[in-house]
Amino acid sequence: MITTIAGGVGAARLLRGLVAVVAPAYITAVVNVADDVMIHGLYVCPDIDTVLYTLAEAVDPERGWGLADESWQAMESLERYGGLTWFRLGDRDLGTHLYRTGRLHDGADLTTVTGEIARAWGLDLTVLPATNDRLRTHITTEDLGEIAFQEYFVRERHSIPATGVRVEGVESAKPAPGVLGAIAGAGTVIIAPSNPIVSVDPVLEVPGIREAIAARRESVVAVSPIVGGRALKGPADRLMLELGHEPSAAGIARFYAGLVGTLVIDEQDAALAAAVEAEGLRCVVTQTVMHGRREAADLARACLEAGR
Amino acid sequence: MITTIAGGVGAARLLRGLVAVVAPAYITAVVNVADDVMIHGLYVCPDIDTVLYTLAEAVDPERGWGLADESWQAMESLERYGGLTWFRLGDRDLGTHLYRTGRLHDGADLTTVTGEIARAWGLDLTVLPATNDRLRTHITTEDLGEIAFQEYFVRERHSIPATGVRVEGVESAKPAPGVLGAIAGAGTVIIAPSNPIVSVDPVLEVPGIREAIAARRESVVAVSPIVGGRALKGPADRLMLELGHEPSAAGIARFYAGLVGTLVIDEQDAALAAAVEAEGLRCVVTQTVMHGRREAADLARACLEAGR
Repeated sequence: MITTIAGGVGAARLLRGLVAVVAPAYITAVVNVADDVMIHGLYVCPDIDTVLYTLAEAVDPERGWGLADESWQAMESLERYGGLTWFRLGDRDLGTHLYRTGRLHDGADLTTVTGEIARAWGLDLTVLPATNDRLRTHITTEDLGEIAFQEYFVRERHSIPATGVRVEGVESAKPAPGVLGAIAGAGTVIIAPSNPIVSVDPVLEVPGIREAIAARRESVVAVSPIVGGRALKGPADRLMLELGHEPSAAGIARFYAGLVGTLVIDEQDAALAAAVEAEGLRCVVTQTVMHGRREAADLARACLEAGR
Repeated sequence: MITTIAGGVGAARLLRGLVAVVAPAYITAVVNVADDVMIHGLYVCPDIDTVLYTLAEAVDPERGWGLADESWQAMESLERYGGLTWFRLGDRDLGTHLYRTGRLHDGADLTTVTGEIARAWGLDLTVLPATNDRLRTHITTEDLGEIAFQEYFVRERHSIPATGVRVEGVESAKPAPGVLGAIAGAGTVIIAPSNPIVSVDPVLEVPGIREAIAARRESVVAVSPIVGGRALKGPADRLMLELGHEPSAAGIARFYAGLVGTLVIDEQDAALAAAVEAEGLRCVVTQTVMHGRREAADLARACLEAGR
């Protein structure tokens, strides 16, 4: 059994590699829900949907999120009313949010609904929200004060300086059913190359999850999302710098020290292997940039070997 | 000033006639909200939207509800999940429900949001929900017990026998701001040719509205929705029969007796004029079937003359 701690796009790509080398029924993804958003009354789970759509081969390949062959009639209509349209929801994608929201209204929990959506897409892996409790990441900014994560990430295109991150609700959250078991029972736990601060940490902060991972640290493998000092996607590098972390593979090692046995870093960062090891982690140097399926499968294999 | 008590399609057509003969700024529509439905977490107002879309010349001419040139991607997507799709929401129409639901979540009331939507469509008439409180019509059926109105109306295509109607929440509802004033201050109040039991009565039952109409009964004009013993659209004839009312223009006169000064009935029902007058109403006989705009404008004119 393999369990992956997942954010959105980077995790989805690694998981696409994993399902190519391990039977999906042996894979569990524990996915961040702190950037979930209630918008227009609909409950939207950006990271869960990116994982599901990617594994279903239904994701839009250009954007990396949302569905391929999408139409935008609802958003065009919403524009007529001056509604909030910076958070774009495609028409086909809306079907997912309508279903999820309706089921949650009926009293189903997010774990159950996520499983139903995964099965509807024919997926055999297990996709679990980190928690069924409602988390909300807020970003403190110099310019706008504290704003909701999606306001920072989408509306402001993560282009304004951040001075802090707060995950509302996390202190009292409980791991969703199956999460702690999937962490404790896996042969290898992989922390995907997701943003450590706003994707991975909100999973780790759910009481019990960090402890469960640390307790089996030797077979926990993280993939650095920072390559050559830069995030492959999104604001991980800037956020790390702004919040006092070194935006490098070494900084990632320091961030995950005590939690992770092995850090997989990119060949571009081979010179940092010693710095990684100085943090008490083993270091594996390989090609980590997933241009396509082959690289993703190779990286998945490297992670599995590192976790053995 | 002209105030119309309105359900959906029949009312929308009469209102389209009214705006052709009276400046829209002088017209208020007080619209039924008891068949509103919370579905997939979205707040949907079928009657308000039918009125707005029709007056905006945006309604689908075939269906009589929803938007023209509609696409159905979200519903197709929802079908993948086995979600509830008998209540069809088009993609463009969803934009309206997203906007409304988002605004209600923000704390705006339905009156405010309805006004915003009307203005976005460039409408100058005033469209008011009968109440900002949440009403829910339930239909008691022999076969399925008590079911929600849209289950009866859409899912069962109003084809199963009804034994009762209950408007949940109506006893404690308050007329929305502007409603009582629009009724008291209008030169003529017109009760549209809508279903008397499930469209008009849930407006009248809001405490204060029936009394406000009855208090100025002489200049209240109703248009019979029953022509030749049959409803032009929907189950008004069957519902009347099943609930102990005569499904005829005379039965409509009895239903509105004490509330309405004049009943406008169709030429086909000219022989019932005496029966209408026997209920204490004046009777105007004219062409009431609105095949198109010309007939709608003619009917609107007849109503205005009858109310003088």
